[in-house]
Amino acid sequence: MTGAPPFNIVKAGHIEYLVTDLPKARQFYEETLGFDLTDKDSSHAYLRGIEDRHHHCLTLTKSDTPGIGHFAFKVSEDEDLLAIEELLRENGCRPSWRRKGSEAGLGKALVVEDPFGFPVEFYAEMEKEKWLLQRFDEQRGAKVMRLDHFNLLLPSVAPAYDWYTQSLGFTCTELTETEGRKPSVWAAWLRRKHTCHDVALMTGRGPRVHHAGFTVSDRNAIMDCADILAASGMVASIERGPGRHGISNAFFLYLRDPDGNRLELYTGDYLSADPDWEPIRWKLNDPQRQTFWGAPTPASWFNEAMLVRSPRTGRLRRPAAAKIQDRPDYLIRRR
Amino acid sequence: MTGAPPFNIVKAGHIEYLVTDLPKARQFYEETLGFDLTDKDSSHAYLRGIEDRHHHCLTLTKSDTPGIGHFAFKVSEDEDLLAIEELLRENGCRPSWRRKGSEAGLGKALVVEDPFGFPVEFYAEMEKEKWLLQRFDEQRGAKVMRLDHFNLLLPSVAPAYDWYTQSLGFTCTELTETEGRKPSVWAAWLRRKHTCHDVALMTGRGPRVHHAGFTVSDRNAIMDCADILAASGMVASIERGPGRHGISNAFFLYLRDPDGNRLELYTGDYLSADPDWEPIRWKLNDPQRQTFWGAPTPASWFNEAMLVRSPRTGRLRRPAAAKIQDRPDYLIRRR
Amino acid sequence: MTGAPPFNIVKAGHIEYLVTDLPKARQFYEETLGFDLTDKDSSHAYLRGIEDRHHHCLTLTKSDTPGIGHFAFKVSEDEDLLAIEELLRENGCRPSWRRKGSEAGLGKALVVEDPFGFPVEFYAEMEKEKWLLQRFDEQRGAKVMRLDHFNLLLPSVAPAYDWYTQSLGFTCTELTETEGRKPSVWAAWLRRKHTCHDVALMTGRGPRVHHAGFTVSDRNAIMDCADILAASGMVASIERGPGRHGISNAFFLYLRDPDGNRLELYTGDYLSADPDWEPIRWKLNDPQRQTFWGAPTPASWFNEAMLVRSPRTGRLRRPAAAKIQDRPDYLIRRR
Amino acid sequence: MTGAPPFNIVKAGHIEYLVTDLPKARQFYEETLGFDLTDKDSSHAYLRGIEDRHHHCLTLTKSDTPGIGHFAFKVSEDEDLLAIEELLRENGCRPSWRRKGSEAGLGKALVVEDPFGFPVEFYAEMEKEKWLLQRFDEQRGAKVMRLDHFNLLLPSVAPAYDWYTQSLGFTCTELTETEGRKPSVWAAWLRRKHTCHDVALMTGRGPRVHHAGFTVSDRNAIMDCADILAASGMVASIERGPGRHGISNAFFLYLRDPDGNRLELYTGDYLSADPDWEPIRWKLNDPQRQTFWGAPTPASWFNEAMLVRSPRTGRLRRPAAAKIQDRPDYLIRRR
Repeated sequence: MTGAPPFNIVKAGHIEYLVTDLPKARQFYEETLGFDLTDKDSSHAYLRGIEDRHHHCLTLTKSDTPGIGHFAFKVSEDEDLLAIEELLRENGCRPSWRRKGSEAGLGKALVVEDPFGFPVEFYAEMEKEKWLLQRFDEQRGAKVMRLDHFNLLLPSVAPAYDWYTQSLGFTCTELTETEGRKPSVWAAWLRRKHTCHDVALMTGRGPRVHHAGFTVSDRNAIMDCADILAASGMVASIERGPGRHGISNAFFLYLRDPDGNRLELYTGDYLSADPDWEPIRWKLNDPQRQTFWGAPTPASWFNEAMLVRSPRTGRLRRPAAAKIQDRPDYLIRRR
Repeated sequence: MTGAPPFNIVKAGHIEYLVTDLPKARQFYEETLGFDLTDKDSSHAYLRGIEDRHHHCLTLTKSDTPGIGHFAFKVSEDEDLLAIEELLRENGCRPSWRRKGSEAGLGKALVVEDPFGFPVEFYAEMEKEKWLLQRFDEQRGAKVMRLDHFNLLLPSVAPAYDWYTQSLGFTCTELTETEGRKPSVWAAWLRRKHTCHDVALMTGRGPRVHHAGFTVSDRNAIMDCADILAASGMVASIERGPGRHGISNAFFLYLRDPDGNRLELYTGDYLSADPDWEPIRWKLNDPQRQTFWGAPTPASWFNEAMLVRSPRTGRLRRPAAAKIQDRPDYLIRRR
Repeated sequence: MTGAPPFNIVKAGHIEYLVTDLPKARQFYEETLGFDLTDKDSSHAYLRGIEDRHHHCLTLTKSDTPGIGHFAFKVSEDEDLLAIEELLRENGCRPSWRRKGSEAGLGKALVVEDPFGFPVEFYAEMEKEKWLLQRFDEQRGAKVMRLDHFNLLLPSVAPAYDWYTQSLGFTCTELTETEGRKPSVWAAWLRRKHTCHDVALMTGRGPRVHHAGFTVSDRNAIMDCADILAASGMVASIERGPGRHGISNAFFLYLRDPDGNRLELYTGDYLSADPDWEPIRWKLNDPQRQTFWGAPTPASWFNEAMLVRSPRTGRLRRPAAAKIQDRPDYLIRRR
Repeated sequence: MTGAPPFNIVKAGHIEYLVTDLPKARQFYEETLGFDLTDKDSSHAYLRGIEDRHHHCLTLTKSDTPGIGHFAFKVSEDEDLLAIEELLRENGCRPSWRRKGSEAGLGKALVVEDPFGFPVEFYAEMEKEKWLLQRFDEQRGAKVMRLDHFNLLLPSVAPAYDWYTQSLGFTCTELTETEGRKPSVWAAWLRRKHTCHDVALMTGRGPRVHHAGFTVSDRNAIMDCADILAASGMVASIERGPGRHGISNAFFLYLRDPDGNRLELYTGDYLSADPDWEPIRWKLNDPQRQTFWGAPTPASWFNEAMLVRSPRTGRLRRPAAAKIQDRPDYLIRRR
């Protein structure tokens, strides 16, 4: 494929987390993290950040097990959906349509199990909401601002890298390569909006979603969140950080919600608007790649991730093992 | 008098603000500034900061007019009160005793109209409260931590300077002197605890209280407070700042409560434990003295202050004019 | 004109400031603001921010008078330049070509006096430089990260608003409208990259450039810059702020360089990737529009701006008066 | 002993670190941490923080091995030294006098191996230096402000607790107690100045100095320091943190200098001026005691510390094993 695709993906749009105890999950996301509830029914809560001008960026869905219902990319207009449908069919996928309102606040949507087994949705239209960005008097907790990215685990990253960059039009901002004389892509950070990424692909047991990243205003918001969690008896939800990433340069905190679903609070990456951006390259075993300050990543961060629910079967997909090593050498030694 | 006084004043302890609309004042202090209510009755609210381990540092008292009911210094033990009583009588004052509990949460107290007309209280004992410092999940608004200082206006600073430093045992950390060949003390910053000050004396129409200063955690807490005030329709309560002081080096924001009473949010001064501390000296007309970044102070900051209620008459005292210029030359020109 | 233009403007690319004392200007920009020097000759210094991966975002050019030499937009590829040339000629402009290297580090460039009298350059290619974003050990002063936007003054904003949005493909994120029953556009914030703006148009004596805005990492970087300027005898270079804008939500500090050229340090606006973004609308006389915390803007901020050098004559253009009021009512009263 | 001692210890005054490579150590302390050099000779460098108004708070001394030469408390006046000498002799110590100038910048000093084997100095007078607190243009790196505390390891804490609180007049702000029905003091935080502590006593192999704590302005200074160390190839010097302590509530970062000597960057504890302060009590096994956010402390933090040089023999003292467990149960299990 040459040239830009005949459609325009705007950004990572929203994600659906499956939770077993909806009131408890709402307490965590609304009170501690500061998400704003825009809509709900008996089995869903629709949440957005303080910078969001649309209906939701996170859906909590009551379920028997934790995991990911779907994640979604926003496109420019409904016609883009037709072009994406065609691309998907050409690639052997069987997309289906959801009519406007099937998901609260959402316009017409295209739903598919993508070539790698992920439940992906595309949509152009979402209901608008009043802006909260300057309602500083109503902001709470970590004051989450917006969804930033999805981080996906796949047994083999290379074909998904081609899919996102060549077929879907994503730009690669940063890469992790395997060691040795013939390096291959171990992980990739890919963007549509002008940030470090909308989606990251990492080598690991998959398809699984490692985490969704949500933007906060600055480093202080992240530390305030750690303080609030620690003060309210939820210290166990802090999995990793705070720290600074080598990759993305962002300041981070990884959290586990009451169901063990993982999310990242994220701030301080960079503007990546340039089309002539050359990917930043990292080696898998560089100790500053994951944490610029050198602190080792806990094993749970590599061992655990969220299963995804198939839009075809409605059941969680069984993941396959990674085809190459799923973590740096220095962590394998002490796994 | 030579040597240390025969009593130990610990710190600026608490202050009583007179307010005409108690519910409205409580909304301002509790919701926006983040004070914690420890006690109340029909005409009082007792508030403390998140670092306070005692009953209150700010009392709001329902009154016909705004102003200051009294301000109070904490001493080490009840015996210190007897020595202070003696000193006051020697100086022509007529102190009186309040028995334990006359003021909610307070032990035995000595109340006096001091030699300069200010309503001052001394006490050793106050009820203790559960610490909130690490209850980050319960902190709100500007997250005020504690009382830091009282700032007083007097027609002539020199005699009060002598009273505080020689009779009461305060140490001078910083001074403002008049210009010219024979400089005199225009203002002074005096401490007992190991910070820049517990009390500041400034030349002006007096006796009046210019403001009480309350400590917040850092510069971000001050800017967050400005954001919250601006978002909640109280932008008019921001009088001056945010900015950095030359004197004290502190980062500041001056606010007016719904009655016009003034307070300062304050952070980032220094440790002053050294007994051999030599006062930092500033000239009245130094443009960086008040605001290190050079922004001019608004006229209201010089023109307006809080009247004090006499403990003898129960009425607000009529202040006398300053005996020398009450502001820098560059502000006189455009008053 | 309907649909997207047949070219892709990426972002505000760089700007040329005219300075009368190059060493003094370099001291200000490199030491105090923390720009990195990538290239220089006897009459130029080429500077970039710590996030920039290209040769320069700010050129200082030795000149007899202060002012603006030109400002430039980056496009996707050289073919875009041909399409822009055509557009310019259709609109009566007389663009000319500069061959690669005419400006240090720059590829082929198209230079024009635009329909409103501004010296504008378009280019696709610029030499790449080593990234400094994670060289925290080499960062200095305000640690300027990158160019964010140009702010332009025009006697009448409406035609320029049409030019940028309809002919050049910019999206309007925020608007200021005149008061009254038939509001017109008084100012507009227009973007290509996914931030609040790449260019702002304001009503005023013009053509003049009011300022260029440069991004810093967070509020603390801005306050640290004020501290550094104040400590190094350059307190007079602080013109306005720090504060938060209503428009853009950004935290700001306006500075004047040693020649009086104005720049803004800027941080904390928002992601604007959505094509269905609806402009935020402000009224000219809203006191929180300019400074969310209500502090009045100094008169110099409205009265003074940078003249632009004509690419045709090489001389500074004489600006024309604004066709409607050039500032809010409340500032006219005390001009 | 009853009542206050007949002398006044003001604060932790300075500490001497033994270093094997003086130029390399100076690079670390001056460039990365931002200490200011006030004096030096061929085997010493005298450093102070930006808030210090005296000659030094840290001496680097060229030596064959790392370790601690001595640490020192400042007293009010020379007469206090005589009273302390008497106390020491009564307790079987053999203090000796150093005349003014024996240590650069220092007045008359009393030097002793204290009852627990630590090399301690007492002094009243130190040369004064120009204040750097507002020379923001000259501040570098972590911008260390001042010495805060010494943290000491002792085989048994109880007798040293009595010595500091009863004989030397320190106040206990926080305590760690052993688990079980008859808890004993496992560690104590003791203060003279109005902060959390001037000296901490911890159970461990001793006499050893675990670290000296130095104050920085806020959380951002600590994170900036981690960034600078990581950027300049010194990531291995980051041992623990950044994080928030349960005890002291301070935000911290533990570093190892090029010789492995440990120091803490420390900010955000509280004012402790009240004489009626009741110690905050923690249990040894409380996982939030050391790090409020729950992150486990690395083993090196418990296993390694600095030996002390005997003022009698000039040689490093051999420490004795702790008499009770030297770390929480949950760390013993995985030592």
